[in-house]
Amino acid sequence: MSDTTTLHVDLGSRSYPIHIGTGLLDKSPLFTDHLPARRVLVVTNETVAPHYLDRVLDSLGDREAHSVVLPDGERFKSLETAMRVYDSLIEHRFDRGSAIVALGGGVIGDLAGFVAATWQRGVRYLQVPTTLLAQVDSSVGGKTAVNHPGGKNMIGAFHQPRCVVADMDTLDTLPDRELRAGLAEVIKYGLIRDAGFLDWLEANMAALLARDKPALAEAVQRSCRHKAAVVAEDELEAGQRALLNLGHTFGHAIETHTGYGAWLHGEAVAAGMVMAGWMSMHQGWLSEADFQRLERLLSAAGLPVAPPEMTGQRFRELMAVDKKVQDGRLRLVLLRALGDAVVTDAFDPAALQATLAHYCAHAD
Amino acid sequence: MSDTTTLHVDLGSRSYPIHIGTGLLDKSPLFTDHLPARRVLVVTNETVAPHYLDRVLDSLGDREAHSVVLPDGERFKSLETAMRVYDSLIEHRFDRGSAIVALGGGVIGDLAGFVAATWQRGVRYLQVPTTLLAQVDSSVGGKTAVNHPGGKNMIGAFHQPRCVVADMDTLDTLPDRELRAGLAEVIKYGLIRDAGFLDWLEANMAALLARDKPALAEAVQRSCRHKAAVVAEDELEAGQRALLNLGHTFGHAIETHTGYGAWLHGEAVAAGMVMAGWMSMHQGWLSEADFQRLERLLSAAGLPVAPPEMTGQRFRELMAVDKKVQDGRLRLVLLRALGDAVVTDAFDPAALQATLAHYCAHAD
Repeated sequence: MSDTTTLHVDLGSRSYPIHIGTGLLDKSPLFTDHLPARRVLVVTNETVAPHYLDRVLDSLGDREAHSVVLPDGERFKSLETAMRVYDSLIEHRFDRGSAIVALGGGVIGDLAGFVAATWQRGVRYLQVPTTLLAQVDSSVGGKTAVNHPGGKNMIGAFHQPRCVVADMDTLDTLPDRELRAGLAEVIKYGLIRDAGFLDWLEANMAALLARDKPALAEAVQRSCRHKAAVVAEDELEAGQRALLNLGHTFGHAIETHTGYGAWLHGEAVAAGMVMAGWMSMHQGWLSEADFQRLERLLSAAGLPVAPPEMTGQRFRELMAVDKKVQDGRLRLVLLRALGDAVVTDAFDPAALQATLAHYCAHAD
Repeated sequence: MSDTTTLHVDLGSRSYPIHIGTGLLDKSPLFTDHLPARRVLVVTNETVAPHYLDRVLDSLGDREAHSVVLPDGERFKSLETAMRVYDSLIEHRFDRGSAIVALGGGVIGDLAGFVAATWQRGVRYLQVPTTLLAQVDSSVGGKTAVNHPGGKNMIGAFHQPRCVVADMDTLDTLPDRELRAGLAEVIKYGLIRDAGFLDWLEANMAALLARDKPALAEAVQRSCRHKAAVVAEDELEAGQRALLNLGHTFGHAIETHTGYGAWLHGEAVAAGMVMAGWMSMHQGWLSEADFQRLERLLSAAGLPVAPPEMTGQRFRELMAVDKKVQDGRLRLVLLRALGDAVVTDAFDPAALQATLAHYCAHAD
């Protein structure tokens, strides 16, 4: 059985389709139609490869396909690991007409996308996201990056994939914790621009956690549609696109503080969204009932609703190197209401202070 | 005394000026007009810094300026050296609104440009080329890159500078050998698209080698005008722009074979242009008199007119990983006449074979 929905990300000459459904890994044309290249390098990791690599290689048909299997984990999202992929491209003499397939979660997608963006100044690539997070977030929008030891995603490029293949079947092997982390980003789309989607999520959270495929496909579709709409409006992140960072400035600070990988990205974002929600409430924008609804939905998804033990001073330090800082001014995404987010550097400093005091040990 | 000519590279929203003249390093507005950034990082090397770094820092006015001084040489055009620049950006909390100034030759320009292209997915940068080669070549066109141990410029991005400041005074400290290497690229513009410029170069070669400033400024202007025209037509190197690679496919093979830095880029390109010229003559495109004129002009500039001792087999191997290869087919830039180049993968394989046999020891 196979049921596919195709969305289109509208970016002029860089437009591309997102295929969402089941049984997609074995649909060879989804891959070959977008790969005129003679040589294809599949970049994946040790966790994903045993499950899906052979099926993707089969679907590449008569292409000269190679693969590089990287260690799994956020700490390998580095220039050093990217160098292993560059080495493989050199070894197999990949030229400008070659292509890369990213098979894995957000780390693989971001890293392989960065390599594709920079190999000979840019080659084609396909995204095959195998985590819910990657399906709803990192596979849409063309952001690619690796981490610097001092900051997440500091080294990167904008580079759009030629096609995204989001197969719900790949979620069968996803650990529960990662499924929940992906739901944080799904909930985010409801919070920033679709109150009706929040109603749907409240009604379908049990089905999603039970990995009901139609429910998952619906959640991925609605999330991708939101992300694609925002990205199409603002490809290079000048304005609107920053709304997608709800919870991310606090969240990145949590991730950096705890060390990449200790908290999953979605977990850090969940706690960050609660903090942004609390701050919005403190500013008088969000009602207490709405804040509690936000907190309850994230709890129902099994996500953390508070940061780990960190001082307010530490939060401030880490937030100061965040990419959302412009000319030294911190910009935050806050909620005017559920389903209505705003990005601003004109927030009340006392509200940030109160938020850190509320959530942190020894806040300054 | 100061005499400035300004060219404009026309790339829509990415257009930028190239200022060519003398006394420019001390003209603060040339820098500050293009740097709304609060924080600026000047990237330079140990050879250039003692001569010009303080003057550039002075011209940055009230900006919070930092600098990173890298070791000098092509072998430092690597991801590892780029990491030192990223470290400095992290250390000084450079955000998206910050900017980079590349002060040096092609290695510094390419590397600092690559860091600017990838730092937080792209920040502003200025080019201050201090070698003739960088002034006429790498500072125009937005190509940025670092080398992979297996191939030159394999890792890179397209990223246009906001402004180029080409001060002829910086050529005072340039070693003779590097001045001559820069003239290889100047001669290249004549060979590929301006026979009249070849006449001018023949008449003015002595003045150029004597570092006559008006002659140098004229050579830089005419070269930049040619490059800017080609780049404006073809920003992402789909077609015409490949003409700029005359001599480069042979030349890169020479550079890789001898180890980066043993032959200067311009020296390798000079030998490569002679080989491409010989091959064009062998194909019946270039007359023997024109080939000899090409060889004589490069000799007059003090440049090599033959490759080092290499086998034809070695040339073939190294040319096979060149970026000009598309889907496994080698493309070469050849001359239909002096001032008229063509890029083609439809050359006679026997002509390539004959060229390698003519120039190589033990050619296969």
